[in-house]
Amino acid sequence: MAEEVCNKQVILKNYVIGYPEESDFQIITGSIKLKIPEGTKDAVLVKNLYLSCDPYMRFRMTKVDGPTLMDHFVPGKVINGYGVVQVLDSTHPAYKKGDLAWGFTGWEEYSLNVSPPLLIKIVHTDVPLSYYTGILGMTGVTAYAGFHEVCSPKKGEYVYVSAASGAVGQLVGQFAKLMGCYVVGSAGSKEKVDLLKNKLGYDEAFNYKEEPDLDAALKRYFPEGIDIYFENVGGKMLDAVLLNMRENGRIAVCGMISQYNLEKPEGVHNLSVLIAKRVLMKGFVAHDFYPKYPEYLQMVLPYIKQEKIVYVEDISQGIETAPASLIGVFTGLNLGRKLVVVAHH
Amino acid sequence: MAEEVCNKQVILKNYVIGYPEESDFQIITGSIKLKIPEGTKDAVLVKNLYLSCDPYMRFRMTKVDGPTLMDHFVPGKVINGYGVVQVLDSTHPAYKKGDLAWGFTGWEEYSLNVSPPLLIKIVHTDVPLSYYTGILGMTGVTAYAGFHEVCSPKKGEYVYVSAASGAVGQLVGQFAKLMGCYVVGSAGSKEKVDLLKNKLGYDEAFNYKEEPDLDAALKRYFPEGIDIYFENVGGKMLDAVLLNMRENGRIAVCGMISQYNLEKPEGVHNLSVLIAKRVLMKGFVAHDFYPKYPEYLQMVLPYIKQEKIVYVEDISQGIETAPASLIGVFTGLNLGRKLVVVAHH
Repeated sequence: MAEEVCNKQVILKNYVIGYPEESDFQIITGSIKLKIPEGTKDAVLVKNLYLSCDPYMRFRMTKVDGPTLMDHFVPGKVINGYGVVQVLDSTHPAYKKGDLAWGFTGWEEYSLNVSPPLLIKIVHTDVPLSYYTGILGMTGVTAYAGFHEVCSPKKGEYVYVSAASGAVGQLVGQFAKLMGCYVVGSAGSKEKVDLLKNKLGYDEAFNYKEEPDLDAALKRYFPEGIDIYFENVGGKMLDAVLLNMRENGRIAVCGMISQYNLEKPEGVHNLSVLIAKRVLMKGFVAHDFYPKYPEYLQMVLPYIKQEKIVYVEDISQGIETAPASLIGVFTGLNLGRKLVVVAHH
Repeated sequence: MAEEVCNKQVILKNYVIGYPEESDFQIITGSIKLKIPEGTKDAVLVKNLYLSCDPYMRFRMTKVDGPTLMDHFVPGKVINGYGVVQVLDSTHPAYKKGDLAWGFTGWEEYSLNVSPPLLIKIVHTDVPLSYYTGILGMTGVTAYAGFHEVCSPKKGEYVYVSAASGAVGQLVGQFAKLMGCYVVGSAGSKEKVDLLKNKLGYDEAFNYKEEPDLDAALKRYFPEGIDIYFENVGGKMLDAVLLNMRENGRIAVCGMISQYNLEKPEGVHNLSVLIAKRVLMKGFVAHDFYPKYPEYLQMVLPYIKQEKIVYVEDISQGIETAPASLIGVFTGLNLGRKLVVVAHH
């Protein structure tokens, strides 16, 4: 007989309007047998070790009609997202007990993932395992793809990153420095600005909340204009950036976190700048670049080991902290990659 | 002694706020000697034959600080723009008397162009000369570059063109049909819609002024969504298009004529669509693609001669009609390429 254990789970209580609140979620305790049910093929039963709190998850808290990039969460059901897992049982030919992987899993202690849509086996374990929720996972691919593939940076170019100390932003800044670019980041607190300047190697950084005129702030930090904007926030910030783009500039649209909780997104007024300045603006999704993951790993692992790249994590302990951790991302409470430790390896 | 003749000129009277009006311009009669002054090098003295009325000219009617794509017009001075000219006298090694050329010239009967910044000699004269203000000039390069170079169209793709019967739009639709795309255009009158469907080969067309819900209209014409949007108008139209873009869609930003006369451009709210749909949005300027002009000519001339491409012109006679012709473009009075005949060849 398989052992049946408690399984704490994070449930969406209701669709979210505006900013998500803790009360939109609930922790319940279910139970699970730590063995894959007889006859269930291509399944992995995993212990969830780390869960990452990602801005894109906001979309999934609201029901939208029509096709979307990912299914929305269903009230009353456990939510899911990126995480690091350890395989406890497997009927999937690619996995065996003890394997570590990152990818999609439930926000719960244990998950039975049938035909896991996205799990990538972890081969390199001489780095912090939690990094696979960030620099070594989807987040890393996002920063790499958005900066290198979408923006085609050149040495000496002027790069601006918003939400610059976040899970993705902190990497973009460091990739840009490694390319020999001049990099300025913005964030929403003094602590984050200090992090950008003192730990993450940004040439300059500023607190956007203390800038009544974002256009003026950008003109101060980029008197020559901006070649590359790594867009994480949208709205007013994008409008100000547009006024400061240089000819043939590139904007990688990774996210627009300032807009996700608004019932009607802010209007962006300065798009006609795209014409005269020949600016490219391109949305992208990390998923499309997963075929480049091995190449990315090969590049980034040595940088991590040589401490040429650092990665700042903001870690909460225990699945009970998961709802608060997730919603804190939308008010900027996190300092770096926000993640939840569900269990230690 | 060189003959001195009258030279009617179009003068900007004052910088323009909002929609330009005829009273913002003035026709004056100066005089000019039909010979290049002694000692003036690299000059051409030309008789202006045709002048084209282009939306981008609106930018030049307002003074803006900082660098711009082109100098603004100066009140009290003759304005300039694209036209077709005949050389009357030349001290420029590339031109001799009698040569025909298209490019930048003054809005007047005769112009002395010193170091002409852009004049391209006309070699093929077995087509209407006025075409060099349109399909065979900057306008043609614009349509070609925006559609072929920016959008990389593929056979069978769904293409939407706004301001579709205009100087550029009518070409984009025909290029798209030649590529085997499905093409829908919008315009602002029944006459224009008829032109799109009956003469320009658009698969479908609609009058945007009769559509209270642009999103719904686009969903009707593009149940599968839009792969390529050739953007000529901006504002509300762009917002509606964004909601209908398909994955990996491309938006060539050629112009945003609906915004040029507003003191504050409309806000565009749906930009976050760019992310999940991986949409590319790219501003461009024909000038960057002039090196491809010979290649373009080689492609388009046979199409014209075989009547596989038609070009609709809206022609006014006499330089006195130039101000009204130009301002009519901003209220959609023109049917096709608006141009002014200053003199016949």
